[in-house]
Amino acid sequence: MTPGHDTHQIRAVIATWIRASAADDLDTVLSLMAEDVVFLLPGRPPMRGRAAYAEASRSMIGKIKIAGTPEVQEVEVFGDYAYCWNHLSITITPVEGGAPMQRAGNILSIFRREPDGRWVLWRDANLLTAVAH
Amino acid sequence: MTPGHDTHQIRAVIATWIRASAADDLDTVLSLMAEDVVFLLPGRPPMRGRAAYAEASRSMIGKIKIAGTPEVQEVEVFGDYAYCWNHLSITITPVEGGAPMQRAGNILSIFRREPDGRWVLWRDANLLTAVAH
Repeated sequence: MTPGHDTHQIRAVIATWIRASAADDLDTVLSLMAEDVVFLLPGRPPMRGRAAYAEASRSMIGKIKIAGTPEVQEVEVFGDYAYCWNHLSITITPVEGGAPMQRAGNILSIFRREPDGRWVLWRDANLLTAVAH
Repeated sequence: MTPGHDTHQIRAVIATWIRASAADDLDTVLSLMAEDVVFLLPGRPPMRGRAAYAEASRSMIGKIKIAGTPEVQEVEVFGDYAYCWNHLSITITPVEGGAPMQRAGNILSIFRREPDGRWVLWRDANLLTAVAH
């Protein structure tokens, strides 16, 4: 497998994540992250593990819709790990009405290649902030 | 060189960065980053390149003192690149008086090994926020 192949796979993970999130397909989203994934956010303690992500996401299903537009800035593969800088814009729409919220910003992520060859998200620093109207 | 050696070198880069920043030793800080470094921050455009960092830092010398306490959570070396998750607390003290500001949070960084063997900062996502008193 060439580095170009891996870069393509990682971009596909990001695209699938966005599509699955928009469709409330949590099982697919969970399949795209490592069991020991860590999410870092400003002003919050780290969210550690796939189970914590699943719990947080389940509480939001049916309450909001998330539509995301990724603009991948850079992907570099280092053996069984890879780095990605993504600029993400998302629109969060309350299902029961109310104004949609827009957030945008950069995400710096580390992906890991699992023993079965699939790339999954392993570490994620999310710098998104509210977009002023 | 063993992975342990590289991990030690990367921790040393972080410790030297903190010490040099506290001492207003900008030349040393600049020597610890790649020429094409990128700094990502919430709600701001990326800061691209060592020259941009130098310009921003020079404008602050003599105005503030920065004291930092890093707590490295994780370092993983992938060949000539490495990933680091650091929890950093900093105190920013205005030189001409005024209340010190405290900021804390996580930093996700990618380091690169230069052709001469030195590890330098290459990509940096800074999630620090103001600490409430």
